[in-house]
Amino acid sequence: MSKTHRIPERSGAAFRLDKGETLTVIDPKGKQVADLLAFNAKDIDEVISSGRTLDYAETIALTTGHKLYSNRSNVLLEIVGDTVGRHDFLLTPCSVDTFRHFYPDQPEHRGCFGNLAEALAPYGVTPDRIPVAFNCFMNVPIDGETGKLRVLPPISKANDRIVFRAAMDLVIGLTACSALDSNGGSFKPIDYRID
Amino acid sequence: MSKTHRIPERSGAAFRLDKGETLTVIDPKGKQVADLLAFNAKDIDEVISSGRTLDYAETIALTTGHKLYSNRSNVLLEIVGDTVGRHDFLLTPCSVDTFRHFYPDQPEHRGCFGNLAEALAPYGVTPDRIPVAFNCFMNVPIDGETGKLRVLPPISKANDRIVFRAAMDLVIGLTACSALDSNGGSFKPIDYRID
Repeated sequence: MSKTHRIPERSGAAFRLDKGETLTVIDPKGKQVADLLAFNAKDIDEVISSGRTLDYAETIALTTGHKLYSNRSNVLLEIVGDTVGRHDFLLTPCSVDTFRHFYPDQPEHRGCFGNLAEALAPYGVTPDRIPVAFNCFMNVPIDGETGKLRVLPPISKANDRIVFRAAMDLVIGLTACSALDSNGGSFKPIDYRID
Repeated sequence: MSKTHRIPERSGAAFRLDKGETLTVIDPKGKQVADLLAFNAKDIDEVISSGRTLDYAETIALTTGHKLYSNRSNVLLEIVGDTVGRHDFLLTPCSVDTFRHFYPDQPEHRGCFGNLAEALAPYGVTPDRIPVAFNCFMNVPIDGETGKLRVLPPISKANDRIVFRAAMDLVIGLTACSALDSNGGSFKPIDYRID
């Protein structure tokens, strides 16, 4: 049985995920978001693209059976399991700027953006190359009439998970998200497993 | 009075827009989409970001008064006029791949992606650096319950327009969109003016 890795609260990790392998992202305590990025391991200029993915899927409600596309319209990942069914693919990782904007009274934090930038640096990914992330378990309902979006606590419960299968050799960035509103007001770890 | 430029149907253009100038994008015949990109003219690694913008705006219904942010959380453009009130900031520019996906029976076309890539090349922008565009006049309603999105004909009428003010010196990419569904089944030009 493969090892389960833990990403401590408000931190991030990066690792290889080879073609055919599955990545299971687990919310061990519930109501915790994990931002996920994916890059072609052989050419990091090919990167996960929210715009391509939403266009092809014709929905913002991505779940089992949906494919996550790159900026070059290639499939990077397929969602092959999902016990939650509510994730976000509209918003960029929280950063020191978003903390200043939304939480001016809270201590600043580099957020998922800073955590991803540090974790991905050894793979040659620079901060400007960090796009909209696939935000596992993030709960961002949109009002179809007004267009307004809200960031609500995740509906994930302890040990809920989402499973991705790699369609090419990838570099993955993954966080335990650092923003108060995204995580129901408290910060928890994220677990992951590669099989 | 400034000159009005015409972007012929299914083509694109790129140009400088300096800080404080306004860009008026006009739909001269109605029901025609124009994909817009913006880059920091002094450093093209700073680029328009749908994810940052939607996060700060807390809505996908962007119109007069909203600011369009970069991947570094700086304001690139502010919308200062809008006679339509329905635009899209979720989807990437149509490309040869999207034509193969959505219109397998139609002749292939390089789409807004190819048109933007060619127009922006003299400014040093490579194809992999083309992100989600701000799609002026594009009509992409989302069902708040199911998450499903539809690409409907624009609601813009002849001579409708949207006006942007530059918050820094920019390179702009702009198209007359090439995709059938986005434009109500016919291809029209887009006009623009810089004041």
